[in-house]
Order: sequence, then C-alpha cells, then structure tokens
Amino acid sequence: MGSWRISAAKIQPRSNKAEADMETHLNNLTKPAGSLGRLEELAVKLAGMQGTPDVSHPAVLVFAGDHGVTEEGVSLYGQELTSLMVKNFVQGGAAINVLAKEIGASVTVTDIGVKGGPPAGAVSRKVKNGTGNIAVEAAMSVREAEKALNIGADTAAEAIEEGAKLIIPGDMGIGNTTVSSALIAAWTGADVNDMSGNGTGVTGAQLRLKQDVIRRAVGRISCTEPLDILAELGGLEHAAMAGAMIEAAGRKTPVLVDGFIASAAALAAEKLAPLSKEYFIFGHRSAEAGHGLALEMMGGEPLLDLQMRLGEGTGAAAAYPLVSMAAAVVREMAVFSDLGIDA
Amino acid sequence: MGSWRISAAKIQPRSNKAEADMETHLNNLTKPAGSLGRLEELAVKLAGMQGTPDVSHPAVLVFAGDHGVTEEGVSLYGQELTSLMVKNFVQGGAAINVLAKEIGASVTVTDIGVKGGPPAGAVSRKVKNGTGNIAVEAAMSVREAEKALNIGADTAAEAIEEGAKLIIPGDMGIGNTTVSSALIAAWTGADVNDMSGNGTGVTGAQLRLKQDVIRRAVGRISCTEPLDILAELGGLEHAAMAGAMIEAAGRKTPVLVDGFIASAAALAAEKLAPLSKEYFIFGHRSAEAGHGLALEMMGGEPLLDLQMRLGEGTGAAAAYPLVSMAAAVVREMAVFSDLGIDA
Repeated sequence: MGSWRISAAKIQPRSNKAEADMETHLNNLTKPAGSLGRLEELAVKLAGMQGTPDVSHPAVLVFAGDHGVTEEGVSLYGQELTSLMVKNFVQGGAAINVLAKEIGASVTVTDIGVKGGPPAGAVSRKVKNGTGNIAVEAAMSVREAEKALNIGADTAAEAIEEGAKLIIPGDMGIGNTTVSSALIAAWTGADVNDMSGNGTGVTGAQLRLKQDVIRRAVGRISCTEPLDILAELGGLEHAAMAGAMIEAAGRKTPVLVDGFIASAAALAAEKLAPLSKEYFIFGHRSAEAGHGLALEMMGGEPLLDLQMRLGEGTGAAAAYPLVSMAAAVVREMAVFSDLGIDA
Repeated sequence: MGSWRISAAKIQPRSNKAEADMETHLNNLTKPAGSLGRLEELAVKLAGMQGTPDVSHPAVLVFAGDHGVTEEGVSLYGQELTSLMVKNFVQGGAAINVLAKEIGASVTVTDIGVKGGPPAGAVSRKVKNGTGNIAVEAAMSVREAEKALNIGADTAAEAIEEGAKLIIPGDMGIGNTTVSSALIAAWTGADVNDMSGNGTGVTGAQLRLKQDVIRRAVGRISCTEPLDILAELGGLEHAAMAGAMIEAAGRKTPVLVDGFIASAAALAAEKLAPLSKEYFIFGHRSAEAGHGLALEMMGGEPLLDLQMRLGEGTGAAAAYPLVSMAAAVVREMAVFSDLGIDA
C-alpha cells in the first residue's frame, strides 16, 4: 500500500519553459495564431505537465461508496441502487462504460465503501460499509479517510504503470451530491442555499430538507485541517478520487476532472496537496449550483457545458476527445515552413 | 451532375413520432432522467432524422475558393495562401486533417474556385478562378452559383453513397469571413458593425476598412431572392457547402455545421431550402461577432464554445465525438429492467 503523503510531496509545478516552447511551436503551425482557441491552451498546459503532450490510453477509475446521510431522505433513490449500479458498471451497461468505449478508455470499478457484500466483478477495497450520517456524526475516521486516499493513489499508480497517460476519476454513490455540497460549503464558506442543487432530481420540500441537512452537517464540525474536514463530511469515494488525483499529479499525469462530485474531490486533493491542481483539466460544468464555486476556488474553466449531471466520470469522458485533439495537433500539424512560407 | 433543386424538394421534416419514442427510450436507461443533458437532446434529434441514430463514417468535405474582395485589403493573408493551404490539406498537414484523423473521418478536398491551376491531389471542380470583388461587382453569376451548389450536392451524395452517415462541410478561402459577414448581414438585416469580426486577425484601421467593404457590398445590391443574394455576395465554397447541406438533408443525413463560414453557408441552405435546417447540428460557437446572429436566425445552439476561429470544419470535427457518444448511448446503455428495477 502506497502513501498519498509521499505522492503529494513528489508533485512538481508545471514547467514554464516547456509551456513557452509549446506556445512558440503552436505559432508556427499552419493556422492563424491562436485560432485553435482552447485546444492551444490545452496543448500548452499538457506541455507544462508532460513535456511532449501524450494522453493515450486514458483510464477511467470509478470509485463507489455509500452514504449514511441518505437516511435523512436527501435522495430520490435508496442506497441499494449504488450496489446495482456497480453491477451495471461491471457488466458494461452504464453511461460511463459507453463513453469510455467511445474514447478507448479502460474502466476500473473499485468498491471503496458500498453497503453490503462486494459486488461481483468490482475490485473490492471496501474501507467500511458506507459512511456515517454526516448530519449527526463523522462520515469516517481520519484513519479511514487516509486508507481511502491510499487506495485511490494505488489505483491510479496501477493504471499509470499499465500505460495510462491520463486519468479520469469517476464516482458512484447515492447521496454523494449532498456530501459534495457539504465539502464545498466547508471549504469555500459559501451559503448552503447557493451550494446544493437538484442532485438526481430532488425539488421543492425535499430540496429544502437536503439544504437543511447540509447546513446541519457543516454546522456540526469545528475542525479546520483538510484531512479532518474530509473525514467528517466526505464520502469514501471522494477520498479515493482525491488520492488518485494526487498520485497522478505526482507522476506528471494529467487528471481530467468530471463535474460536481469529482470537483469536490479535486478540491479535497488541492487542500491536501496544493500543487496537485496544476495537473487538473476540468471537463464539464455541472448543472449543480455549487460547482461554479468549487471551480472558482481552483481557477478551473471546464471545456464543456452540456447540462449533464450524471457523474461517474461521464462529463470528463465527453471532454476527453478535445484533450486528445490538442495533443494530436502538436504531434501532427505541419508548420508554415513546410509550405515554403515564413511564419 | 445532380440538381440541388431536386434534393431540396426531397427534404422531409424530422419525425415527431421517432423523437417521442426516443425520449421514452432515454428515460428507461440506467441514469436519472435527463442527466445526460445535451447528449440526450442530440439522441432525440438524430432519431427524428434517422430513426435509429447512426453517425458512423463521418465525412469532412472541404471546399476551397478564392475571393476577389481580398484586393480591398480585408485580410492579413494574400490569395496565394488558399492554394498553399489546399496543398496542405492534400498532404494531411492542416488542422482539419489532424482532427479528422482523431474522429476517424474521411477528408475530401474540392477546388471549387481557387485562383490559379488546380492544386495537385485536390478534386478539381473549379467553377471559376475566384469570385468577383463583392465591394464593386457580383461575386458570380446565378448560373455559376447553381453550378457550385450542384457540385456541393454531388460531393455530399458521393460521400453518403460511400457510407458516410454524417457530413461535415468545411471551407478554405482567404477573405471568406468578409464574404460570410456580407451574406449574414444581407439575410439578417443586422448592422455591419455587429456582423464582422477579426477574421484571421485583422484589427483597428484594417477592421474598419473590412466593415466598410462589407457595407459597400451589402449596399450595392437590391435583389431579394436567396439565390440572387448568394450569387451577388457569396463565395463559391459557400454555395458548394450549402449544396452539400441540402443534399444531405434530402437524404436524412445529419450535417454537423462548423463555425462562422459554415453557418453563413447553412443560412444560405436554409434560405434556399427551409427544411434543410432540420438536419443541422451546430458544432462550435465562433469567436466571430456575427455568428450569434446567424445561429439565432436558425435556432441553433452550438455544442462547443472553445474560442476557435479557424474554419476548415475544425469546430464541427471537435464536436463530432459528442454526437457519436449520443448515438452510442442509445445503442449500448442498459435499461433499468436489466438491473431488475422498475423505471
């Protein structure tokens, strides 16, 4: 078992020199300067991370966990759906499976804390049988949070050692928009009414109940250390995703961050290891209200805004082709001198 | 040689029944209702066009032509670059080649009106040696516009007969943002200052000159028939792209519309054959100021907004993976009853 702390200590900032060199290269390509817009921005950022951009063999790492807070009635679905959806991932029938296939990505499904027996076919690394109800108690102990962080880091390390040049952390866990809202509220200090959205579709009185639950959870804690906050309010999948992000950053591997849940995990990663955010590329702007605040805190501007609100890594997978195109432009486009023109 | 008029007469509206059936199917898939956002919207639209969504074997159809209006000094580059870029397309070194390869699309490059000899390797269907200077004269005769429309229709027909289930019309032609602005201004009645943007990078005095040129061009004409306006102000590539779009629509084949230039062509297609727009999917919101007006006129909302301003079909190619994902979701995702759940 690796240690997310060792990975965090290894993270280096992106290379300014490599980014400047990439800007020069992009300006020599056969197109008006800057005309590929954000694809050029991506190419520069990838160069800063990797030297030569290479995002081949993307790996989707889905972490699934349950949330005690569902007993408050914050979600349209019961916890049993988490386990059923893990089965669906393993069988290849979920949205993330379909999008991963479209982008040529591998999918690893890790049970980090699903309630009940390990779902067949998933990697079983259950830390505990779902978290505590954050409205009234800690989600997990600090030791459990550390364990989930390390499992996430290990999962990313394995994927990268098998050849993945980019990772997409994904999530499954009924109740995890509530938990993500609580984490983001705690870290941004934002008003809970601005933080929590409709999740899988809650509205009206149930939405007000959800906001009240988040307010109780955030109001309950007095700790300020990132790891303590993560343990108090987080999900096991948030901790594992954060660990995977920190590990990838330590290995100069870009992390394509999905929407609301993944951004709450990214914020956890950044709080635990501030340099990790240098390796984040934000895939999709979620329809969840609090997402914008988390993005603002990390200086992130998602590539897509398609009104998706599914999680699983789907928004990141949808954005992946753009990142791949940015790398391909660098690798394959002609320069003006190939056409006999002075740039 | 086909006739764009016959193709236009064949176009049928999308099927409401197929769209409603697709909505029902999407609600049975293993995800919260509506949570795939615009991917679901795309799936519904594709169903209306095609019955079963299938966007395999996309074909990029690039049309290249020159513009007499460049003699007014509206562009940073000279006409000779059009021919050099056609050579670049044929050699596979341009941005559209790289993005087409990423999405598995074929690329056909048609010389519809490049000044000078036919560039080696391009399909030579030159209607004339570049258009007239629209500031002072008609770009082409109505007969030439018809010829370019028919060549575009033929090109699309060939691609579709060879198996393309979606087409991406692309453009190359120094000066064609000026021409596109003139076309859109004529059709929307918008103020020229709101219409014309920076093209490949013109600013300050040159931008004011460009706006003045567009104003002179639009002010010069008094015709109101779409074909007459296209002949007076258009580019040969605009006419060919419009012909390709009309042909595709007549064959129930989705058209993925690129940015500013392609949207001016799409507006031409819609003016000539109003039902054609039912088959348009807009790929990318251009940084060009006038693009929004053209989109508004067609009720189009692009999938991407990445500050790209290159043309060639690149913005549409960048959006293609999303369209492909929408079709894959329909084809491959499990339904709730597969998991033993009542939807």
